[in-house]
Amino acid sequence: MKTYLDCIPCFFKQALDAARLAKASEAVQREVLISLSKELERFSLDSCPPQMGKFIYNKVREITKKRDPYKEIKEKSNKLALSFYPKLKDKVKNAKDPLLFSLELAIAGNIIDYGVKHSLDVDREIDNILAEESEAIRHESKAIFNYPEFKKELKQAKCIIYLGDNAGEIVFDRILIEQIKEKYPKKDIIYVVKEKPIINDALAEDAYMCGIDSHAEIISSGCDSPGTILSICSKDFLKKFKLADMVISKGQGNFEALYKKSKRPVFFLFMAKCPVVTKDIGCKIKDIILLYG
Amino acid sequence: MKTYLDCIPCFFKQALDAARLAKASEAVQREVLISLSKELERFSLDSCPPQMGKFIYNKVREITKKRDPYKEIKEKSNKLALSFYPKLKDKVKNAKDPLLFSLELAIAGNIIDYGVKHSLDVDREIDNILAEESEAIRHESKAIFNYPEFKKELKQAKCIIYLGDNAGEIVFDRILIEQIKEKYPKKDIIYVVKEKPIINDALAEDAYMCGIDSHAEIISSGCDSPGTILSICSKDFLKKFKLADMVISKGQGNFEALYKKSKRPVFFLFMAKCPVVTKDIGCKIKDIILLYG
Repeated sequence: MKTYLDCIPCFFKQALDAARLAKASEAVQREVLISLSKELERFSLDSCPPQMGKFIYNKVREITKKRDPYKEIKEKSNKLALSFYPKLKDKVKNAKDPLLFSLELAIAGNIIDYGVKHSLDVDREIDNILAEESEAIRHESKAIFNYPEFKKELKQAKCIIYLGDNAGEIVFDRILIEQIKEKYPKKDIIYVVKEKPIINDALAEDAYMCGIDSHAEIISSGCDSPGTILSICSKDFLKKFKLADMVISKGQGNFEALYKKSKRPVFFLFMAKCPVVTKDIGCKIKDIILLYG
Repeated sequence: MKTYLDCIPCFFKQALDAARLAKASEAVQREVLISLSKELERFSLDSCPPQMGKFIYNKVREITKKRDPYKEIKEKSNKLALSFYPKLKDKVKNAKDPLLFSLELAIAGNIIDYGVKHSLDVDREIDNILAEESEAIRHESKAIFNYPEFKKELKQAKCIIYLGDNAGEIVFDRILIEQIKEKYPKKDIIYVVKEKPIINDALAEDAYMCGIDSHAEIISSGCDSPGTILSICSKDFLKKFKLADMVISKGQGNFEALYKKSKRPVFFLFMAKCPVVTKDIGCKIKDIILLYG
């Protein structure tokens, strides 16, 4: 996806939030914003938004001199999400269509901001999202939901690449992966994490902490942007990406980085969070998206 | 009020909205944003937000080469608001406390964005706001509402300065001014407009178009920022500002420019629209504010 002018105010908001989350002083927060404003002139709108995200979060890391400013938050998110694992597994088990339900759960996991939430809030949030989803099904709010294509491709695929997104939410990915493995024990699944710390994106250590390694091979994309930008991914990753039969991409960052930029079709799994994305693909805010494109 | 770092993303959003409202091409919109990012480094956070507003809107005017890019919108807003005048006068007449009601109406007028609305929408919006206001009264959402002080000062004042805000909304100011005049026919009222076109802020021509001149003297502040920044106002205005017994200031822009910057207390009349302002004065978004300070 290209960058729209509407992304620019949002870049500044993200930069400010990132600097604050890294506990930067007000002077340092301002320095991050000034760096971003200088970068703006050089930035091409043909780049995808996560390209600027890469600049912003690397700059926060550089200016705050913290290698992984969100490490604690990520660990907290993983622990919190893991505490819901038994309850969620039960829900999947009792669902009418467990594969569909675990897909929906994976989206639900994508929209929770664990960083600032407590156990009780997340519990309530999951219930709300699931209630909304049933509502959504009834009211056809799933404007883009290529589930038949997903089932078809899943049946045929031998090797599946699964691009992860944030810490915490990967517990929800684990549930989807377990569901796939239960149905098709012989499928190879490769779970992809980021190379270096970037916001609260999952790293290999998060994937291990959340038990993904019992069901999938964990590799890094070689990329340190909040979305998987193919042009800066490692050769090893690109080789596996090319060879896999099916690609599942989680989160809006990966969508922004990959949509229309990859030669192969990808299953994008996310909840539409911003007006630029909804305009780009023709859906509404909070729509549940399973887009094959 | 000082500028907070949270104002910065909002400046970019305002700049983009302003460029689009002036029908600028995408390339020109980008140019406006780049200009703003260059200005950012020079800008002191001790300045009030409307100081940056002045830069943004003057830049849009300069780059788009349009002296008054919002002229049509302002005329449309005035006409639309005038079409509601008879209905609103009736409502005031039948109100339990017509002065209070016309004060509330003046705030209601402040939050309507006439530029993009149709008659039916505005009608619905006014009804909603008034319903919300009654709700607000019941639930004590008027956290800051110095009405007793307003009544007391109004009774004593000989000359009142009324700082206007946007085109369209000045029809609502007219209703409040008429209410004051009905109660106190001998009060002198000076209605203040902006010197040069700045977004949809009311100019002298708007004040005449909306009939303010039948009840008040119309003068300009000499200022071309979206709030009345005293340091760049004309000497003539400052003389009158100093001599007046009571100052009524409409809108958030005037609040941001004048609050804690004026040696004399002012009645600020607006609906809190942004989290920075609510934090600054300790209220909630959408609170109805009549602040004497």
